[in-house]
Amino acid sequence: MMEKRGNEIWLYEDQTPNMKLGLRIRDVLYNRKSDYQEVVVADTFQYGRALLLDGAFQITEGDEFCYHEMMAHVPLCAHPNPRHVLIVGGGDGGVLREVLKHECVERAWLVDIDKDVIEVSRRFFPGVSCELDNPRAEVVAQDALKFIKGKRAQFDVAIIDSTDPVDFAEGLFRREFYRDVFEALRDDGLCVAQSESPFCMADVLSQAYGEMKAVFPVVKVYWGVMPTYPSGTWTYTVGSKLYDPSIPRRLVSFKTRYYTFDVHRACFALPPFISGLLEEGKAI
Amino acid sequence: MMEKRGNEIWLYEDQTPNMKLGLRIRDVLYNRKSDYQEVVVADTFQYGRALLLDGAFQITEGDEFCYHEMMAHVPLCAHPNPRHVLIVGGGDGGVLREVLKHECVERAWLVDIDKDVIEVSRRFFPGVSCELDNPRAEVVAQDALKFIKGKRAQFDVAIIDSTDPVDFAEGLFRREFYRDVFEALRDDGLCVAQSESPFCMADVLSQAYGEMKAVFPVVKVYWGVMPTYPSGTWTYTVGSKLYDPSIPRRLVSFKTRYYTFDVHRACFALPPFISGLLEEGKAI
Repeated sequence: MMEKRGNEIWLYEDQTPNMKLGLRIRDVLYNRKSDYQEVVVADTFQYGRALLLDGAFQITEGDEFCYHEMMAHVPLCAHPNPRHVLIVGGGDGGVLREVLKHECVERAWLVDIDKDVIEVSRRFFPGVSCELDNPRAEVVAQDALKFIKGKRAQFDVAIIDSTDPVDFAEGLFRREFYRDVFEALRDDGLCVAQSESPFCMADVLSQAYGEMKAVFPVVKVYWGVMPTYPSGTWTYTVGSKLYDPSIPRRLVSFKTRYYTFDVHRACFALPPFISGLLEEGKAI
Repeated sequence: MMEKRGNEIWLYEDQTPNMKLGLRIRDVLYNRKSDYQEVVVADTFQYGRALLLDGAFQITEGDEFCYHEMMAHVPLCAHPNPRHVLIVGGGDGGVLREVLKHECVERAWLVDIDKDVIEVSRRFFPGVSCELDNPRAEVVAQDALKFIKGKRAQFDVAIIDSTDPVDFAEGLFRREFYRDVFEALRDDGLCVAQSESPFCMADVLSQAYGEMKAVFPVVKVYWGVMPTYPSGTWTYTVGSKLYDPSIPRRLVSFKTRYYTFDVHRACFALPPFISGLLEEGKAI
């Protein structure tokens, strides 16, 4: 929702029915409906350029590193030698950018249902989309639910960078999809899914954890901060066939702003208000 | 700032000149200027009752445990036997409540400049103010800058639970005050100060760290989440005479929602975007 106040323009996200985040903007740079969602790019004073999908902040230049580094480096460093990586969603290219920093990765598939998000990111977020044309990347504009069907033992790591579990993204939080991911992973493979805020969307976290538990032998949750997401606190749920994802097996050889070896180990130390949600979490 | 939208009432905090947090409220329960600040209590849908001072969310029933547990249990568990504890500010009683859960604490002094905050908390936040009348607590409505002057080797732990560094709270972020705190601590004493958001108030963190470094031999920063504070990410700066505060020396014997032995060790694992701010931090 946009609002003028004197000379100022403000852009608000209804983060929940009872909570809004408002950012003052210079301008709206893009505003169009794609086949799947409303895509908006705005230039904010606080966090630089921001991408909104259906009114929800997805990335801002100021804080995207928090989310993208934690989505990519935790699962990739938990694996001793990830060569083939699947990214589901993430059409902006932020997770891909981080994944390709790992030299051991030979090939990364990015499968996003909405080609407009990919194009908008290329145009407005060069610092995020910068690896979309990397020869090690294969970008596919397709429904990931279909893409993954029938794939067998092909990936070492799968990263599920979805939007909130509504509409077309809802299936990405269900057991049937996790089963397909399981089949598509090699015998020592692992996957991670963003699993929302433990304050505002606790039921999504519980569900993702429960559904993942029904499929993977090892399931763990880690957490981090993400200022422009509801409550500023975010969770990530890992399903693993073999490795304990809380143990980093490799060091990163590049500069980071959020992820480190110590942060990897630390982010699995869950406060009781989060671990309690997991104990309640039953597969549905 | 309050706003009506149809049947809905919303309360907004200007977290920075370019960012607002809006919470939908049922009602404003209290709204009066004290001798020092504007004191507002509102009943929010998202986080229960909220206390605002000069328009800024201080505590909400829904997330105050994050801040209060981390302010109290990290410094108290870093000390092997804290008996005398000083709380500067914190008139709502939340830190005091957590401090008195430690049975080794014989006496806690709460020194807040604004007696109205204390009274408002007693009236509207029974779950937060519940230990203000504990016989082990001494509640003093006085300027902490004056209270601490001339005190020598009296406290094991000092907890500086201040508002933002403006007006009367500004002196609580300066070297002269930290020197008085140093003098007031025993030979193995330590103090902690809330040091704001690394995203929105990075200069405050840098300054608090630099000023503390000019006084204490051991200075470390830890971090945590706090949804209703700007960016949802918060830092805490510890000055210690002897102990490394990142090492918990005692276990807590009571139920917690945020703090654990593992969280204590984990919260000192800083991402480079925060540790980088500290390296820049020079005493001013």
